[in-house]
Amino acid sequence: MLKINGPRLWASLMAMAEVGATARGGSCRLALSAEDQAGRELFSHWCTAAGLTLSVDAIGNLFARRAGTEEDAAPVMMGSHLDTQPEGGRFDGVYGVLAGLEVIRSLDDHGIQTRKPLEIAVWTNEEGARFTPAMLGSAVFTGALALDKALASVDVDGISVAEALRAIGYHGERASGGAVDAYFEAHIEQGPILEDNAKSIGVVTGGQAIRWLDVRVTGMAAHAGTTPMPLRKDALYGAAQMIQALESLAKDFAPEGLTTVGELSIAKSSRNTIPGLLHFSVDLRHHRDTDLDAMEQQVHKQLQAIAAQRGLDVTISPHWISPATPFDAQCVACVQAAVDALGYSQQRIVSGAGHDAIHLARYCPTAMVFIPCVGGLSHNEAEDVLPEDVRQGTDVLLNAVLARAGQAT
Amino acid sequence: MLKINGPRLWASLMAMAEVGATARGGSCRLALSAEDQAGRELFSHWCTAAGLTLSVDAIGNLFARRAGTEEDAAPVMMGSHLDTQPEGGRFDGVYGVLAGLEVIRSLDDHGIQTRKPLEIAVWTNEEGARFTPAMLGSAVFTGALALDKALASVDVDGISVAEALRAIGYHGERASGGAVDAYFEAHIEQGPILEDNAKSIGVVTGGQAIRWLDVRVTGMAAHAGTTPMPLRKDALYGAAQMIQALESLAKDFAPEGLTTVGELSIAKSSRNTIPGLLHFSVDLRHHRDTDLDAMEQQVHKQLQAIAAQRGLDVTISPHWISPATPFDAQCVACVQAAVDALGYSQQRIVSGAGHDAIHLARYCPTAMVFIPCVGGLSHNEAEDVLPEDVRQGTDVLLNAVLARAGQAT
Repeated sequence: MLKINGPRLWASLMAMAEVGATARGGSCRLALSAEDQAGRELFSHWCTAAGLTLSVDAIGNLFARRAGTEEDAAPVMMGSHLDTQPEGGRFDGVYGVLAGLEVIRSLDDHGIQTRKPLEIAVWTNEEGARFTPAMLGSAVFTGALALDKALASVDVDGISVAEALRAIGYHGERASGGAVDAYFEAHIEQGPILEDNAKSIGVVTGGQAIRWLDVRVTGMAAHAGTTPMPLRKDALYGAAQMIQALESLAKDFAPEGLTTVGELSIAKSSRNTIPGLLHFSVDLRHHRDTDLDAMEQQVHKQLQAIAAQRGLDVTISPHWISPATPFDAQCVACVQAAVDALGYSQQRIVSGAGHDAIHLARYCPTAMVFIPCVGGLSHNEAEDVLPEDVRQGTDVLLNAVLARAGQAT
Repeated sequence: MLKINGPRLWASLMAMAEVGATARGGSCRLALSAEDQAGRELFSHWCTAAGLTLSVDAIGNLFARRAGTEEDAAPVMMGSHLDTQPEGGRFDGVYGVLAGLEVIRSLDDHGIQTRKPLEIAVWTNEEGARFTPAMLGSAVFTGALALDKALASVDVDGISVAEALRAIGYHGERASGGAVDAYFEAHIEQGPILEDNAKSIGVVTGGQAIRWLDVRVTGMAAHAGTTPMPLRKDALYGAAQMIQALESLAKDFAPEGLTTVGELSIAKSSRNTIPGLLHFSVDLRHHRDTDLDAMEQQVHKQLQAIAAQRGLDVTISPHWISPATPFDAQCVACVQAAVDALGYSQQRIVSGAGHDAIHLARYCPTAMVFIPCVGGLSHNEAEDVLPEDVRQGTDVLLNAVLARAGQAT
C-alpha cells in the first residue's frame, strides 16, 4: 500500500500553526482576517510549488487542482478549512486541508497520475466564530445558502463577508458549485470515542440527526421568605425535574441518543425570588431520524406531564433541525477498503459535529476519515493529536482517493 | 375597645399613593428621590396638622412625636417606610407609617393622652431598590450599620446617600438611636398565608432565620454532538439533581423549612456545549436557627454526594446569614391581647420578609402586626389589600400601643 510522508505533513501542520499562533500553543485565524489571509497564502505557496492550479469562487472558497488524465472528468475533491476559533487548536480543519496537500505531494513522490482530476478545497468560514452561519462557504458551494445572503452576513464590528473578502483579496471569479465526483474530508474526531476505544481511524458513516428545541417554563414569581412551599409554582424546581428527565431520556435511547441542555436563563432572577419564568435549550441527537422523532415525542410528553403535575406552563418550540446525513456507501467503502488493507486499528463512527462534509454529502458522494484527538479536546488551544494518527489517517485518505480517482495506466 | 377611623386612614393611603403614582395603579417613590421627598412632605404636613413635632436624623429617618404625660419616658414607637420599589404597590411600608398616624389621630378623637410619648418613624431606604443595603435607615438607627458607610452607599448613577439626602433636604440633626421603650410595626404580610387561612390579623412572633449560600459546580465542558453520555461530566445535569434534592430537603423540614434557588448561571453557555461550570444561589429559611443548622448540614452532605457520584466538583460558600429574630414576649402579648379583645380572626405567624422591625428587635422590645395582601402579592403595582383588614390591623395597633404607652389618668 502507498504511504504518505509523515514528517513532511507534520512540518507543514506546524508551519501553518505559526500563522496566528497564540500564547498557549494554539492558533487564531478568524475567517477572512489578516491571519486567515496569511494562512491561505502559505497554503497557496505550497500548492504552486507542487504545480497545482489555484482558483477562488465568489464566497472565497479556495481550490487547488491537480490535473487528471481524463481532464473532462469531475474532480475527486479533498479538503476542509483553515479558519479557526478565537482560541483554536492546530488541527481542527487544518488537518483535512494539509492531508489533501500531502496526498498530492505523495502521488508526486511516486510519480502517480490519476485519471480524474484532484482538487483540494479550503472552505470559507467553517467555524462560524466570526460570521454566521458556520460552514458558510460549503453551504454556498452546495446551494444550501444563497450567495447574496452569505455575503451580507456581518461580524460583531458590522463588517460584512463581502467587505472582508475584498479586504483580503479573496472575492474570486470561479463559478460556484460544478460537478464533483466525490468529496473526502479527513478531520480530527473532536470527541473522545476513538481514543476511549484505542482506535487510530474512524470510518465515518455519516452525520447524526440534530434537533434544537427552545423550552419556556412559566410558574409564579414570589418572595422566597414569605411563600410556603406547597403554595409555590417554582419554574426552576420544575425545570430541574425536566432536565433530569432529559438526562434519563438519553439512557432510554443509549448509546446513540444524546441530550444536552446548554443554556438556561431565569428571567429577572434574584437570590430571594422564586423563579417565575425561565428558558432553556435542548439539543437532541441520534444517528437515525426515526429515533430522534421518538425522542422528541418523549420530550413533549414528559415535560408536559411534569408541568401539569406542578401547575406550571411549558411551551416547547422547534429552533433548528438537521436531519441525519448518511455518507455515500461507495465512498465509505473506499475508506473502509483502504484502512483494511493498511491494517490500522479502526472502527465505524458517526460524526457528532458539523463539518463541511455534511453539506457536501447532500451534493455529491462523500465520506470522511477521523483520527483521534487527545482527550477528545477541540476548539481549544490545547487541542492535540498523535503524529502517528496523523500519518495513518492520511495514508487512508491517499488510498481511498486514489481508488476513487483511478490510477492512470 | 377603641377603634380607629377606617375611611380616614383609607383616604390617607390613597392620597399617598398619588405621590409617584404609576400607570398601572402602583407607586414609585425610590428612596430619597423627588417623589420620596414629596411623600415625606405630605406626611409631615399631616403630622403638623395633628400637632406632632418633627425631627430628622443624619441618615434621613423622619420622626413625628406626640408628647406623653411622662415626658422623660422613652417613646413607644410605630412606623415603617414610605419608599417603594420601582414598580411598587400602595401599601408596602406606607401602611405601617399611616397606621401609626391614624393611631394618633384616633387618640386625639377620643381625647386620650398617653403616659409615655409616642413617635412615628419613617425609615430611610427600606426597600434597597435605590441604595444597598435594604433597611438602611433602621440599620443606622440601631447601630447595625455605621453612619459613614451608609452615607457613602451609591445608586446606579453614582449618587451617594449623602448627596441624595442633601438634595432633598433630609440630612437632619437629631442624634441617632436613643432610648426606645418599644417598637410596633404594622405591615402587609407580603405572602399568602393569612389569606390562605382566611385570617385578618397575623400576630408576628419574630423573623425567621435566613442563610444564603453560593454553590459552584465544576464538570467538563465538551461538545454536545461528539461526547457520549457516559463520558460526560455535565455540570447542569448534576445541578439539576442537586436542585431536586434542595426541593426535597424543604419537605424534610416542613412546614417551616424553605429552600429557594433564585439564581443560576452557566459559564460560557452555548446551546451545543455541555455545561462545564455553573453557579447557583441557595436561600435557606427556618423559624429556628438549630433547624437551619441541620438544613445547611444536609445541603453540604447531599450536594457533595451527588457531585462525587457524578465526578463533579462542588464548592458551597456562605454568602450571608441572618439569625432568627424572636420578638419581645411582652410586646407580642400586647398585640395578642388587643386582637383577642377585638375578636378578629387571627393566627400567630413568623415574618418571612425583612422589615425595619427586624433591626429594631435587636435594639428594643419589638412586635409586628400583619394583615393579608390579596394573593400574597407584593413588590408589584397590583399589590392590594381589603379595607376591612386595613382597619382591623390598625385597631390592633392602636390598642397594643395604648397598652404599652399607658393611658394617662
